[in-house]
Amino acid sequence: MKAKVLIVMGSDSDLPAMEEAAKALSGFSIPFRLTIASAHRSPELVDELVAGAEKEGVQAIIAGAGAAAHLAGVIASKTVLPVIGVPLDSSPLKGFDALLSTVQMPPGVPVATMAVGKAGARNAGILAAQILARQDKKLEKLLREFKKGLALEVKKKARKL
Amino acid sequence: MKAKVLIVMGSDSDLPAMEEAAKALSGFSIPFRLTIASAHRSPELVDELVAGAEKEGVQAIIAGAGAAAHLAGVIASKTVLPVIGVPLDSSPLKGFDALLSTVQMPPGVPVATMAVGKAGARNAGILAAQILARQDKKLEKLLREFKKGLALEVKKKARKL
Amino acid sequence: MKAKVLIVMGSDSDLPAMEEAAKALSGFSIPFRLTIASAHRSPELVDELVAGAEKEGVQAIIAGAGAAAHLAGVIASKTVLPVIGVPLDSSPLKGFDALLSTVQMPPGVPVATMAVGKAGARNAGILAAQILARQDKKLEKLLREFKKGLALEVKKKARKL
Amino acid sequence: MKAKVLIVMGSDSDLPAMEEAAKALSGFSIPFRLTIASAHRSPELVDELVAGAEKEGVQAIIAGAGAAAHLAGVIASKTVLPVIGVPLDSSPLKGFDALLSTVQMPPGVPVATMAVGKAGARNAGILAAQILARQDKKLEKLLREFKKGLALEVKKKARKL
Amino acid sequence: MKAKVLIVMGSDSDLPAMEEAAKALSGFSIPFRLTIASAHRSPELVDELVAGAEKEGVQAIIAGAGAAAHLAGVIASKTVLPVIGVPLDSSPLKGFDALLSTVQMPPGVPVATMAVGKAGARNAGILAAQILARQDKKLEKLLREFKKGLALEVKKKARKL
Amino acid sequence: MKAKVLIVMGSDSDLPAMEEAAKALSGFSIPFRLTIASAHRSPELVDELVAGAEKEGVQAIIAGAGAAAHLAGVIASKTVLPVIGVPLDSSPLKGFDALLSTVQMPPGVPVATMAVGKAGARNAGILAAQILARQDKKLEKLLREFKKGLALEVKKKARKL
Amino acid sequence: MKAKVLIVMGSDSDLPAMEEAAKALSGFSIPFRLTIASAHRSPELVDELVAGAEKEGVQAIIAGAGAAAHLAGVIASKTVLPVIGVPLDSSPLKGFDALLSTVQMPPGVPVATMAVGKAGARNAGILAAQILARQDKKLEKLLREFKKGLALEVKKKARKL
Amino acid sequence: MKAKVLIVMGSDSDLPAMEEAAKALSGFSIPFRLTIASAHRSPELVDELVAGAEKEGVQAIIAGAGAAAHLAGVIASKTVLPVIGVPLDSSPLKGFDALLSTVQMPPGVPVATMAVGKAGARNAGILAAQILARQDKKLEKLLREFKKGLALEVKKKARKL
Repeated sequence: MKAKVLIVMGSDSDLPAMEEAAKALSGFSIPFRLTIASAHRSPELVDELVAGAEKEGVQAIIAGAGAAAHLAGVIASKTVLPVIGVPLDSSPLKGFDALLSTVQMPPGVPVATMAVGKAGARNAGILAAQILARQDKKLEKLLREFKKGLALEVKKKARKL
Repeated sequence: MKAKVLIVMGSDSDLPAMEEAAKALSGFSIPFRLTIASAHRSPELVDELVAGAEKEGVQAIIAGAGAAAHLAGVIASKTVLPVIGVPLDSSPLKGFDALLSTVQMPPGVPVATMAVGKAGARNAGILAAQILARQDKKLEKLLREFKKGLALEVKKKARKL
Repeated sequence: MKAKVLIVMGSDSDLPAMEEAAKALSGFSIPFRLTIASAHRSPELVDELVAGAEKEGVQAIIAGAGAAAHLAGVIASKTVLPVIGVPLDSSPLKGFDALLSTVQMPPGVPVATMAVGKAGARNAGILAAQILARQDKKLEKLLREFKKGLALEVKKKARKL
Repeated sequence: MKAKVLIVMGSDSDLPAMEEAAKALSGFSIPFRLTIASAHRSPELVDELVAGAEKEGVQAIIAGAGAAAHLAGVIASKTVLPVIGVPLDSSPLKGFDALLSTVQMPPGVPVATMAVGKAGARNAGILAAQILARQDKKLEKLLREFKKGLALEVKKKARKL
Repeated sequence: MKAKVLIVMGSDSDLPAMEEAAKALSGFSIPFRLTIASAHRSPELVDELVAGAEKEGVQAIIAGAGAAAHLAGVIASKTVLPVIGVPLDSSPLKGFDALLSTVQMPPGVPVATMAVGKAGARNAGILAAQILARQDKKLEKLLREFKKGLALEVKKKARKL
Repeated sequence: MKAKVLIVMGSDSDLPAMEEAAKALSGFSIPFRLTIASAHRSPELVDELVAGAEKEGVQAIIAGAGAAAHLAGVIASKTVLPVIGVPLDSSPLKGFDALLSTVQMPPGVPVATMAVGKAGARNAGILAAQILARQDKKLEKLLREFKKGLALEVKKKARKL
Repeated sequence: MKAKVLIVMGSDSDLPAMEEAAKALSGFSIPFRLTIASAHRSPELVDELVAGAEKEGVQAIIAGAGAAAHLAGVIASKTVLPVIGVPLDSSPLKGFDALLSTVQMPPGVPVATMAVGKAGARNAGILAAQILARQDKKLEKLLREFKKGLALEVKKKARKL
Repeated sequence: MKAKVLIVMGSDSDLPAMEEAAKALSGFSIPFRLTIASAHRSPELVDELVAGAEKEGVQAIIAGAGAAAHLAGVIASKTVLPVIGVPLDSSPLKGFDALLSTVQMPPGVPVATMAVGKAGARNAGILAAQILARQDKKLEKLLREFKKGLALEVKKKARKL
């Protein structure tokens, strides 16, 4: 099945966080491909991935990176697909570096930035689903059910207290 | 013509920044509605706007706010539409407050966060166009031309130097 | 016995910190109710809680949340009761995000913000007691004794040194 | 008429910000006294003010200060009245210093901290009104009307757009 | 023997850091007294300590505290003795709060601020020695030897490498 | 004359700062070329510039950019020439974003990062000269004279005081 | 008359701030010398100044610098005199750089750090006076009067309000 | 064999990070010397090292330090060799202090600043190699191979996923 979302991360050490994006997409039965490419160490590979993704029909790209996290921005410079950036907490500066490097994009080249770390990776998958749902009523319905589920889960926990 | 994008800002003093989002959408001939609603001072109005937007067929919501910028997050809690947050620099803390309040959303409720201020507002409009372009080949083509235009503009400036 | 203070937290993982608020209230024999509700995942539940609290005669609401901590602000947008916000350290950004998201409220909608984490939760309970003590001479006396106790405890520790 | 709220600021240069607290109280017809006392330059004066306030029947103290803003904390160490702290932006560090100095109080001695600057001063007056309203049904009604007014004002501005 | 330096800390949990100040003073055979007093929980005790220290002939006061670290500033407001402040890392905000609360003193009331944590506590003791050495040639000589020792120790470690 | 240093900036608005790099190089009679290229808006142009520079015999590349300043990092990913990054203060976040985006490079791809703004641009030119001087005794001598000049200038100013 | 305090600043542009230190010393009739020396541009000059100061009988050295403010630390590495550091706000980073560069000294080499900017410079003069007063009863009396004056001035301003 | 690069660190506790610089140089067969010298505790030793390095024919100096990391700046004030600074994370402030102390150098005295910690130390070695490669074609070739190796390693990890 063709991937509708491409998940790229800068390093294999980012996998524990970026798996959350994959889990979110799986929860909505959205086909995706997850791979590694570094904006700084393998720039050609990033270019190939983006070009390949556009041809394959990918609808959104999720990019997770830490430190001077340029991956999402570099991808966004090469495509008009929506790019979702996940700043990761992988340097002594606690993710402040990755957050600012991902979000402060210049006018013309947006990166849809998520929270630092696992929470952000999970939300990247959900945002991708929200984007895909613009042309998929069934997915939109799933998202509404997911939203209700979030509220129910909170209520259940409140009752347990 | 029905709005495809709703732009909401927390205060009329946010207009000079948020107009950039409107300009970006106009540049792609995307119909939008621009209004004011405060998550803290007029929460019911926010609810009505979101409900109205979903009925009208809005495909993405852009929310700009400063300080403890909850507007985008509160909207995201009420809809499954993609919500794009623009943190504004309107307190003594230079936008760090608005950035963290907008981007650090909990798992389950993403806000696609842009850069602080005008650059972010401009990019919010472009990201909305990228999302709409997933189901509109003509708009996708416009975005590719826009992207080429960005590069040409840089080259022109380089030549002038 | 009817609750005079409502303690709400955004997630069950916030309990170890927010229990400190409960302990402080118990120490002054103030009846309270402790529950979970998320501004982002269960916004309707938050509305119900606030409406219920007002009817029940609750005099102050304590809200603890981490990351883009909107809970206290969202509650404050729905009530004229004093709302006490406790920013929690539950993201990689060490609580700076929760602090700024809680304290930087716009004019018109105050949130009485406490320190980040357990110290702040403990103080939220004491501030609630101070507010209630405005109409309860016995509680005011208890607070004065508590204050003396703080000083005595310091002296005791100094002597042990 | 006896003051129900005491507003203290660390320096006369804090007046333009702290007047917002006075205006808010005036808007609710709450009698207040506004004065200057520095935690560091006139500590005895601070002690006298607090003692005097308690005798006079003051119900809440608002303290505004910049830089290493200790004023609210020092007042809170001397009274069981609710103390509302307003961090001011009066050093090169943009109010980050005053915010952290005001909000990070140790367990046992809360300071209800507001946003940095004018917005926070305005909200300090409103929080004081919310505290007083716990024993004053008329004031509570005024606060509800004020809250409606906030929403109406937003709607009016939205219409003008 | 009469203390020449008073070391005060805000809480007994500050002892592991503040012992470094004591060790530094011991290394120069400077008599000191080490005690606990909280600016917020035991303000009267702080006043007594300062008054007692002045009478006893103390020449410098070292104050260590975390979070909204007001202890050094409050002491400095009560004495013309040199006050040395040690910000401690005891809240989730990693000592940034204690540093800004200690160092950003208003004109008129200096606090000689040291580095955050153990390094700062150690240096507080050495600065106190440097102040005392202004009237004690023997101590000045010890300080010069200590300084040479620092350099020798570095050289020894370099040789071991 | 063939350029030995390439100065690239992300936008023409960066010129007032980046001219300082040019002035420094001119002061050492080092031939350079100054141009504009954006990592995000004209990535191909960046690639061409880097490839061209290597062919031309450029020995070091200076890259200045603000906000999510990826320019230096993107260049460094394409060359083994020393890349000198100058973070610029061109967003509301005061250059903290550009600094962290420039300096926090992952292992394998260094960027020699300078101070934020004009001071950093000036130093970028000097560092380029220091690198070139490794194979140019005359330039090394010029650098030693420049260094003496710095000291003399300070002394002159001291005398004027 | 021989200087008892040496005031050094890193650049002539620091004079408007560092004059405050001079004014404070003048207010106590303490002889001082004010000069310019840069830790980075004129390191030998710094060494000479320190050696000269020790010979002349200087009792404390005040050093003001901005950005990577190493001046106070470099002086402290060369003397056992108390060194008072004043971080200045002269880079885009608002003085956070100068503050951390001045205060975070390693164990063994203290710098008595003051607030950022003019307030800190003023306090540097006062701290120098407090150090000198340890061996000068008349100066100690002046300091006590100065302290009373601070309180009186606050009271006067309070009365004017 | 004569060292071409000198690696200096402020303390032996910096060795685990600074070894990364040594490893990088070893990987390129570049002879280096690694030693300890503190800008604050052994300033004369630093001077000797720099003078010795210049005589020996060292081409670049790498300096790693934490907290108020003055080492690289102090070295840069004494030489016209390129100085590469590595800020280390060795205080409670997570390396923000070392980063700002290293990078914010005044005009005239550049320090080529790397990322905080191990990543930065590794890159310091690579930057030194890039500088040496300006006069060593064989080394330049090694650097190109190293660069290809980085990309290959990423691809290998991507395939393993």
